[in-house]
Amino acid sequence: MIKIALDAMGGDFAPAETVRGAVLAAQNNPDITILLVGTPDALEKEFASVGAKPKNIEIIASSQTVEMSESPVDAIRRKPDSSLFKSINLVKSGEASAIISAGNTGAAVAGATMILGFLPNVKRPGIAIPVPAKNGVCYVIDAGANIYCNPLHLLQYGIMASVYCQQAKNIPNPRVGVLNIGEEDSKGNELVKQTIELFRKTKLNFVGSVEGRGIFESLCEVVVCEGFVGNVLLKTVEGLAEFILQSIFAQAENYGKDSANAEMIKKILGKLKERTDYAEYGGAPLLGLNGIVIISHGRSNAKAVANAIKVAAESSRHNLPEEINKGLNEVQQHISWMDILKSWRATRK
Amino acid sequence: MIKIALDAMGGDFAPAETVRGAVLAAQNNPDITILLVGTPDALEKEFASVGAKPKNIEIIASSQTVEMSESPVDAIRRKPDSSLFKSINLVKSGEASAIISAGNTGAAVAGATMILGFLPNVKRPGIAIPVPAKNGVCYVIDAGANIYCNPLHLLQYGIMASVYCQQAKNIPNPRVGVLNIGEEDSKGNELVKQTIELFRKTKLNFVGSVEGRGIFESLCEVVVCEGFVGNVLLKTVEGLAEFILQSIFAQAENYGKDSANAEMIKKILGKLKERTDYAEYGGAPLLGLNGIVIISHGRSNAKAVANAIKVAAESSRHNLPEEINKGLNEVQQHISWMDILKSWRATRK
Repeated sequence: MIKIALDAMGGDFAPAETVRGAVLAAQNNPDITILLVGTPDALEKEFASVGAKPKNIEIIASSQTVEMSESPVDAIRRKPDSSLFKSINLVKSGEASAIISAGNTGAAVAGATMILGFLPNVKRPGIAIPVPAKNGVCYVIDAGANIYCNPLHLLQYGIMASVYCQQAKNIPNPRVGVLNIGEEDSKGNELVKQTIELFRKTKLNFVGSVEGRGIFESLCEVVVCEGFVGNVLLKTVEGLAEFILQSIFAQAENYGKDSANAEMIKKILGKLKERTDYAEYGGAPLLGLNGIVIISHGRSNAKAVANAIKVAAESSRHNLPEEINKGLNEVQQHISWMDILKSWRATRK
Repeated sequence: MIKIALDAMGGDFAPAETVRGAVLAAQNNPDITILLVGTPDALEKEFASVGAKPKNIEIIASSQTVEMSESPVDAIRRKPDSSLFKSINLVKSGEASAIISAGNTGAAVAGATMILGFLPNVKRPGIAIPVPAKNGVCYVIDAGANIYCNPLHLLQYGIMASVYCQQAKNIPNPRVGVLNIGEEDSKGNELVKQTIELFRKTKLNFVGSVEGRGIFESLCEVVVCEGFVGNVLLKTVEGLAEFILQSIFAQAENYGKDSANAEMIKKILGKLKERTDYAEYGGAPLLGLNGIVIISHGRSNAKAVANAIKVAAESSRHNLPEEINKGLNEVQQHISWMDILKSWRATRK
C-alpha cells in the first residue's frame, strides 16, 4: 500500500483545496492512502462541507502551520510540530513514501533537505519546474534550490530529471538540454560549456544548448540551468503570461463585457489556460533526496493537489529515489565526479 | 546638423525596410541627416520603388555585408568594407554621432566595442533591451554583451541606462532595480547582494530587488542583471509571447477562420501586438561606448528603423555619451571603483 503524506495546511487555499484535492485523489486511487497532516479542527470542518472522509485518508494531527512568508530558518527552529515538517518526518520514518506541500517553498526545500538528506552521490537537490510548451511540458531544473551551481550539479540535474520524466511522467527517452544564450556549443559561460561537454559523454538523449525560446518550441523535456537563472526564468514566465492574458481581457472588454464576443474570448483564454495550467502537471519534484518530495504551486487548487498526489503515487510505485540512484551510478561508471570538480576548480582560479 | 549612420544592409528585411525606415525618419525629422551605408545598386533599387530619395539621406557605398549567422570574429577579419563596420567608422571619424544596425548583433557589439572603444571609467558596455510592460517599458541591461559580470559592471549598467531613459526616452527619474530571485535584500547570489548594497549608496531612484514578474508589473524602468541571465530572459520572453499568441490564434480558428469572431480576435491580438511591439521602442542601446550605438531587432520593419533613428537623434541632441560620463563621475565621487572590485575579489576567493 502506497502512503502519501500531504501538508494539508500549506498553500494559499489550504486547507479547503488540499482537503478537496485529497478527497479527489483518494476516490480516484483506491490503492493509495493519503496521510493528511494538519490541524484536526480545520480539517474536520472541511470534510463536513465536502461530505464524508474517504477511508483511504488518515488525519495526522499537527499543531502549527508554517506561513507563506516565514523565513525557512525561523520555521525550522520554531515550528517542529507544523504540518509541513510533520509530513516530511512521515517520509523520514518510512510511514509515507512521498510528501507533497503547496506551502512555503523555501521552508519545504530546507526542511526536506535537512530531514531526509541527500541520496548517495548527489551533490545538491534541485527543483524541476514544469513549464507548459507547444507539445507538452519542459522541466526546468534547477528553479531555485541551488543558486551556485557547478557542472556536476547540472549534470546530476539532467540525469535526475530524465529519470523522473521516465518513471513518474511516462515520457520515454526524454530529451535533455542545457539552457544557453545561443544554440552553438561555443556559446555561453564556462559553467554551461563544461556542462555540455559532460552531457555529450553520457547516454542521455542530449540535445545540446537550448535557448529560452526553445523551451516553448518543445525542443526538449528537460532543461538544466543554475538555480538563479531558473528562478528568474520561472518568475518571468509567470509574470509575462499573466501580463498578456490580462491585456487581452482588457481589450476584450472593449467589445462589451457581457457580449457573446467577450464570452468567446473567455472560452478561448480558458482553453489556453487549461493547456498551460500548472495544475495539470502535478507539481515540481525536488530531486536528489532520500524520499519523494513534490512542491506544489502556492495557488494550488483541488485539481492541482490531486494531480500532485497522482504523480507522487506514480513516483512511489516506480521507487523514484532508487531509480535516480541507478541513473547516477550508470553515468558515474564512465565519468568521475572527482575529475569534473577538478576541471571546474581549475578554471575558477 | 545631427548625422545618423544607418547600416542599410543589416536585418532580416534589409535593405527594403531599412530604406523605407530611413525615408520615414528623414521626412519626419528634417533637422537630421541619415547616412545610409550599403550596396549602392541595392539601395537605388529600393529608392526607385518608394519614390525619390529625400535630400537629407546620403548614400555611403559599402561593398560587403555581414550575414546574420556569421561569427563576429570572422566578420571583423574578412569584411572591413561591410555596411556595418563602415557605419561604425563614421561615428569613429566624427562624421556621424550615432550608428544603428538591425544586423548581426554579435558583430555589431564586437565591432562597435573594438572601433569606438569604451567611455572613460566604463568597465564593460551593456545592451539595454526594452521589454514591454504594464505601464510602458522596462530596460533589461545587460542582455548579452557581458556574460561574466561583477558588481561594478552592474552598478555602471544601472547608471548608464538611467541616463539613457532620461536623455533619450524622456523618462524623468527612472526607477532602477536589480533582477533577483526574491524581493528581500537577503535573497540572491553574491553578485546581486553586493550590487544592491552599491546602488543603495547612490542617488539613483533605486527600488531594490525585482523579480522577473516585477518587470511586467512595471516596478521599474531599468533592471540590471548579468548578460547571461538577461539574454536567457529576453529569449524566454520572446518565445513565450509567441507561444501564447500562436495558441490563441489556433483556438480562434476553431471558431471559423474567416468569421467575424476570428476577425475580432485578430483585432484584439493586433492591439496587444501594437502595445508590445519592439518596433515602438526604437531598439536597444549599447551603452558605455564612445559614441551612440543602437542595436535594432533583426526583424525590424520600417517603423522600427524609423523609431531607432528618432531615438538615436534624441540621444545625439542630448549628447548621451557625455551625459553618461557625467552620471558615472557623479557616483564615483562617493564610491571608489577600486574598493568595489576589491570587495568582489575578496568574496570570490
